[in-house]
Amino acid sequence: MARRGVLKINGKRLDTPAFIPVATLASVRGLDGRDLKEVGVQAVIANTYHLHMKPGDELVRDMGGLHRFMSFDGIIFTDSGGFQAFSLGFGMEHGVGKIADNIFLENLKTEGFGNSESRKWAFVDDGGVTFHDPLYSRKSRLTPEKSMKIQSNLGSDVIFAFDECTSPLSDYEYTRKAMERTHRWALRCLEAYDKKQKIFGIVQGGEYRDLRLESAGFISSLPFDGFGIGGSLGKSKRDMLNILEWVIPVLDRDKPVHLLGIGGIEDIFESVERGIDTFDCVTPTRWARRGVVFISPRSGGNRENKFRIHIKRSDFKKDSRGIDQWCDCMVCQDYSKAYLRHLFKANELTFFRLASYHNLRFIMKLMEEIRESIESGTFSELKKRWIES
Amino acid sequence: MARRGVLKINGKRLDTPAFIPVATLASVRGLDGRDLKEVGVQAVIANTYHLHMKPGDELVRDMGGLHRFMSFDGIIFTDSGGFQAFSLGFGMEHGVGKIADNIFLENLKTEGFGNSESRKWAFVDDGGVTFHDPLYSRKSRLTPEKSMKIQSNLGSDVIFAFDECTSPLSDYEYTRKAMERTHRWALRCLEAYDKKQKIFGIVQGGEYRDLRLESAGFISSLPFDGFGIGGSLGKSKRDMLNILEWVIPVLDRDKPVHLLGIGGIEDIFESVERGIDTFDCVTPTRWARRGVVFISPRSGGNRENKFRIHIKRSDFKKDSRGIDQWCDCMVCQDYSKAYLRHLFKANELTFFRLASYHNLRFIMKLMEEIRESIESGTFSELKKRWIES
Repeated sequence: MARRGVLKINGKRLDTPAFIPVATLASVRGLDGRDLKEVGVQAVIANTYHLHMKPGDELVRDMGGLHRFMSFDGIIFTDSGGFQAFSLGFGMEHGVGKIADNIFLENLKTEGFGNSESRKWAFVDDGGVTFHDPLYSRKSRLTPEKSMKIQSNLGSDVIFAFDECTSPLSDYEYTRKAMERTHRWALRCLEAYDKKQKIFGIVQGGEYRDLRLESAGFISSLPFDGFGIGGSLGKSKRDMLNILEWVIPVLDRDKPVHLLGIGGIEDIFESVERGIDTFDCVTPTRWARRGVVFISPRSGGNRENKFRIHIKRSDFKKDSRGIDQWCDCMVCQDYSKAYLRHLFKANELTFFRLASYHNLRFIMKLMEEIRESIESGTFSELKKRWIES
Repeated sequence: MARRGVLKINGKRLDTPAFIPVATLASVRGLDGRDLKEVGVQAVIANTYHLHMKPGDELVRDMGGLHRFMSFDGIIFTDSGGFQAFSLGFGMEHGVGKIADNIFLENLKTEGFGNSESRKWAFVDDGGVTFHDPLYSRKSRLTPEKSMKIQSNLGSDVIFAFDECTSPLSDYEYTRKAMERTHRWALRCLEAYDKKQKIFGIVQGGEYRDLRLESAGFISSLPFDGFGIGGSLGKSKRDMLNILEWVIPVLDRDKPVHLLGIGGIEDIFESVERGIDTFDCVTPTRWARRGVVFISPRSGGNRENKFRIHIKRSDFKKDSRGIDQWCDCMVCQDYSKAYLRHLFKANELTFFRLASYHNLRFIMKLMEEIRESIESGTFSELKKRWIES
């Protein structure tokens, strides 16, 4: 199912499969617009809800839109805000992400969370979601129409329809209810959205096969410009892959498919193999800020270590080699692990920038190789070389 | 006395008058080696004592020296560690810098600090300085020989002789005692230093004319490669200028003169006018991290506002202009004050980098114009345009 494509939007180009870095508040943390260009970024995704709160979508509009505001002339995606309503409310309170950790699952199941419209952290009605935002200690409300309005103000190229994100703790009945609401919201978004933007519809349905198939069929039948696969991706990597295998064949293959919030290296290979065109994830820059940098098989990266090393490892104290032998970024060319370890241990600002730069270039280069391998029919070999190394 | 010069050391070049940014722990905070090149930095100064503690000068030596370690191929100065013994001990405890603030002065005078070899924070004997380091909660000791050894390990191009730094609170008698000790230490440094490096002797003598003259005469009579003007620069800007006017004419004018730890824009003009060739200061990057950015007269910068604005000012909320009309840096070309204000208020990492980049380029460009004005005989006009604007 892996495929090589080109998205052309507003005179800009995105070669797929593509990794799309997250610019939460209109900046990819630690990097500037020139850095993004250098590492090969053609598109970023910014967070609708976060920008609505700070600095405000109307301010961004008044400043000429996101492209001019953040000085990035590539393609800008914005998410719908639905995931923030989920993650800031439920997720932050209970430490649940897109794939539930088993321990959390056991603890929380007994509490009965995830199956009710009226929760401690959020209230979902047919109009929209009202949730407590712990970042601002205030109540926020998002509706499909409001999400469309905010995204229009932001002036992104690609927007997502507003959806209700369920958690891996939601049962079948609740997930169905939420999915049906997401479908009604999809129609409202198609009414309300700014027709100058491209809009992607989001497939929900949690880990349930029939719901995912139904959702994919419904969303695919609507005049969206592309699709996102959102919400709970189940309780394990296997669940996630099942979901991709159910959904993607149902979707209109003339349109791009985005996997929301996923970006581990193994996940990238598995998702591309199943037909995903784009994904976004905060991983490269978030890990960088924690001192974790990516390494390729050539430098000992493998499935077990998740292609990651922690720079503070004591055996790097006098390691004069760069982070990775395969990576071509300026950090790998110019700086030793010993130097980077020193900067990290001293909490020097420069470390966060250099590590973010490397991690992002690493992923962008991986995507380049993946695209080339698809073109030359050697994707399986490339995948094997990385994943089974 | 203003003069245009070129320092050539180990095949590298420094055009003077020059501002030398501080790379405390082998990094100019928030910037990388490529940034330094772009903004026009030909030399940096790293901190001997800090690097001795972290990551250790022997490690830096084993990694091939500072140039290779931090990937900077320009000229690297290291200070002597004498100022850290002062600032970490006395200075940090009492909030006194190189020029005493009047309030501190009044408060502290009564406590009688600054006139004793045995202080709460440090003990100075003829061998060296033992001081309490609050950063590591431990006792440290530096001697002239140890300073020379550390600087040799670091492998910098230009080193400073180890000196006893007095404070603006030190009286005449103590300042004389410390100066004489600094002179004895100068001789020991000239014995002990690594002859592959260039060594600058430091003139002490506080705010006392006869001591400064005596110190300048003595240090100038020794076979140093250049001079630093160190220690207390008095209780006011006027005191500082007096000190420069006393000292510089006494020094061998065939050798460069460095003013340690000074770098405000007005100070730069006044020091250059009095014959200073180089200075260093943490100001550009430190202010940047606090949200303070430099502006030129063209954008309203003047002596009163110290050529600085705080980016969080509410009138910048929708200001689509760059920070400064005169500055040619990529930050001023690509980003609005509204965007930078947003990043600062959101505590985004990218802000610290962009603000540091601007502030440093601003100072480097100012130095370029100062050098050109000296060449064309228009320094006074340039100074007038900036300082009397």
